[in-house]
Amino acid sequence: MRMVDLIEKKRDGHELSTEEINFIISGYTDGTIPDYQVSALTMAIVFRGMSERERADLTMAMVESGDQINLSQIEGIKVDKHSTGGVGDTTTLVLGPLVAAVGVPVAKMSGRGLGHTGGTIDKLESVEGFHVEIDNDEFIQLVNKNKIAVIGQSGNLTPADKKLYALRDVTATVESIPLIASSIMSKKIAAGADAIVLDVKTGAGAFMKTLDDSRELAHAMVRIGNNVGRRTMAVISDMSQPLGFAIGNALEVKEAIDTLKGEGPADLTELCLTLGSHMVYLAERANSLPEARTMLEKAMEDGSALEKLKVFLSSQGGDGSIVDHPEKLPQAKFIVELEAKEDGYVAEIVADEVGTAAMLLGAGRVTKESVIDLAVGLVLRKKIGDHVKKGDSLVTIYSNFENIDEVKQKLYDNIKVTSQKVTAPTLIHEEITE
Amino acid sequence: MRMVDLIEKKRDGHELSTEEINFIISGYTDGTIPDYQVSALTMAIVFRGMSERERADLTMAMVESGDQINLSQIEGIKVDKHSTGGVGDTTTLVLGPLVAAVGVPVAKMSGRGLGHTGGTIDKLESVEGFHVEIDNDEFIQLVNKNKIAVIGQSGNLTPADKKLYALRDVTATVESIPLIASSIMSKKIAAGADAIVLDVKTGAGAFMKTLDDSRELAHAMVRIGNNVGRRTMAVISDMSQPLGFAIGNALEVKEAIDTLKGEGPADLTELCLTLGSHMVYLAERANSLPEARTMLEKAMEDGSALEKLKVFLSSQGGDGSIVDHPEKLPQAKFIVELEAKEDGYVAEIVADEVGTAAMLLGAGRVTKESVIDLAVGLVLRKKIGDHVKKGDSLVTIYSNFENIDEVKQKLYDNIKVTSQKVTAPTLIHEEITE
Repeated sequence: MRMVDLIEKKRDGHELSTEEINFIISGYTDGTIPDYQVSALTMAIVFRGMSERERADLTMAMVESGDQINLSQIEGIKVDKHSTGGVGDTTTLVLGPLVAAVGVPVAKMSGRGLGHTGGTIDKLESVEGFHVEIDNDEFIQLVNKNKIAVIGQSGNLTPADKKLYALRDVTATVESIPLIASSIMSKKIAAGADAIVLDVKTGAGAFMKTLDDSRELAHAMVRIGNNVGRRTMAVISDMSQPLGFAIGNALEVKEAIDTLKGEGPADLTELCLTLGSHMVYLAERANSLPEARTMLEKAMEDGSALEKLKVFLSSQGGDGSIVDHPEKLPQAKFIVELEAKEDGYVAEIVADEVGTAAMLLGAGRVTKESVIDLAVGLVLRKKIGDHVKKGDSLVTIYSNFENIDEVKQKLYDNIKVTSQKVTAPTLIHEEITE
Repeated sequence: MRMVDLIEKKRDGHELSTEEINFIISGYTDGTIPDYQVSALTMAIVFRGMSERERADLTMAMVESGDQINLSQIEGIKVDKHSTGGVGDTTTLVLGPLVAAVGVPVAKMSGRGLGHTGGTIDKLESVEGFHVEIDNDEFIQLVNKNKIAVIGQSGNLTPADKKLYALRDVTATVESIPLIASSIMSKKIAAGADAIVLDVKTGAGAFMKTLDDSRELAHAMVRIGNNVGRRTMAVISDMSQPLGFAIGNALEVKEAIDTLKGEGPADLTELCLTLGSHMVYLAERANSLPEARTMLEKAMEDGSALEKLKVFLSSQGGDGSIVDHPEKLPQAKFIVELEAKEDGYVAEIVADEVGTAAMLLGAGRVTKESVIDLAVGLVLRKKIGDHVKKGDSLVTIYSNFENIDEVKQKLYDNIKVTSQKVTAPTLIHEEITE
């Protein structure tokens, strides 16, 4: 088999066989196939696409390119959740304790990552003493005991995907639905998921800006999952504005606590109940989605979801009392309100740019070496469609430095207030199961 | 400027500016832009094409990537000829002396190359003593005195094209009209041509198999030439069967001598007169194509074309007497006729495969290190449309080894004789000037 012939085959619109896809991915992983051939192939894929069979094969070839996490010692069906990313997305912090409270095992491997705020681990490290440096046996014991634990990333998972993504990033071949879908799914499958719930964001603040593109990506991932034997479904949710109110690490932990008590932002609560219901249903802890939702609502009401968070935090060295005393979380020195300059209705909150404002405060990482300030960030006081009066707070800014003119200017530039009434955006667009 | 943005621009169907194309080619030449970005770009070009302006810019960027030959000390308009390649193409050996005989300066830089037979230099080295190791001053003096000289390739011409072609070859991005056209034209322009006559081959034995593709390539090259200030035209000629009769080095020199005397194969003679007329006309040695053709026919008849070959060979150390005594050329030990097995009409002569048969005899180079046997090769006795009787010779095989069963089998497999009458293919399909 010669790589050049396989590139030509794809270039000319033909389907690559399972054997050919395995040849490409194993050759690329071990270095016998060079970058310049793979980038020509990925560009051909941008134009020609991939069949459903090719996508499933590519996903499994990347799964098999490295280590795979074995979660077989954990009792029950392991359901993982994945979000395609957005701004102020606190769902993971809420969903873990919430579904664990009704008996769904949550065995999460998590990372730090770059972005407007830190990753899930950074956020959890707002809680004094909490750590993810536990070994695999302890991890499994904790999940079996508490139904929830988080471990730091280890092992050499999907090295083919890592190498391929880095190449696509510099060759303008990121924008390909089959390649995006295979990349995401390979990581979830290698991490040991039996079933997968996907939260595909759509709108200005999401990777996929249009509903059509989001729907195509959702179908692509759901079909890959189901074709390789992992029950998979997707929710398409709004990211035309940040989700919830908080954007920042400790601020999001506080918001997660509120939400687990049933006192969180309406959009975040609704999305967590929707995603959570699907997780409970796929984990076969409920016979229907309405039954699953009722179980989750009850866990919020009776305090068992919050109690689960407390147990989870303290089992990994954290101070569980923050659940009752969130003032123990890191606090910013300066708290400043961003006042509305006129009466009207909030028409637009540009999610990316508001995220960047949080990053300017120090809430996120620009490079791998950046140190995150866990205390700082933003809490939105108004969302799209809300009425505001001149002088009302639009956003509360939590900062550890005094001069925040640049942050304020960015927020004013990206939160638009108009005189006409504005309808709030739809939160959940579609639920996709095939 | 970032290469990834330029790849994205082309991927999305936009035009690259002159500055952007110069950035890409100079960066690729000096190694600051890596292969994997360039191969993604070339694949995007395969799908998106290039505008006329982009093609001209790419050509000139490649010309300027290395040395350029300065032929300004040679009197007159330097017209170069280029063929897109085929089997048994003796036109260069005929055209040089032919147009030089009527005063067109022929300042040829030539190479060896791989193929069914050697390159022009290999063929000329069939003449004892002939060599191309002359310095630049001598080369220019010879052209000014005799109107013809050949020099071996030197200098670092179009390094960007060499690098790009090698990359395209292993990334399935050879098949792109804009890239093929720019590659050919950059080499001709860097070699100092004022005007260019292109012989674009079409048919089974050519790189371009269909008339449509050949026409598209011809227009692409002619427009590049004219857009960058080099008068350029193209002839589309048949390569559904080998051109002329001879395929081999000394055998083609002998055929060139015959043709210069007006005693050559009809197709080779006609093509040389057509291409030659355009060369004479573009060199402004005649006011019309018919006038140019009359001049060339006269040079064949009155012996001046043959005399020009003799002077050319002896001026570069060769034994000019071979012109009158071609039996002095290297001779093969075994001469075997391939006899027709039945009566009928020749319907097909698969040019590629017949070329490969000549290579099996040792007439060509498989790798750069191969040593060519100048004496061996094939002479076709029948062409498509000819009537044959059982026992007639289809091909005379010139070999230096006795067991030529494999060669004979390949020839029988690829020369098809049918009972129905067959029409000879059209030799010259089109002449393209814009």
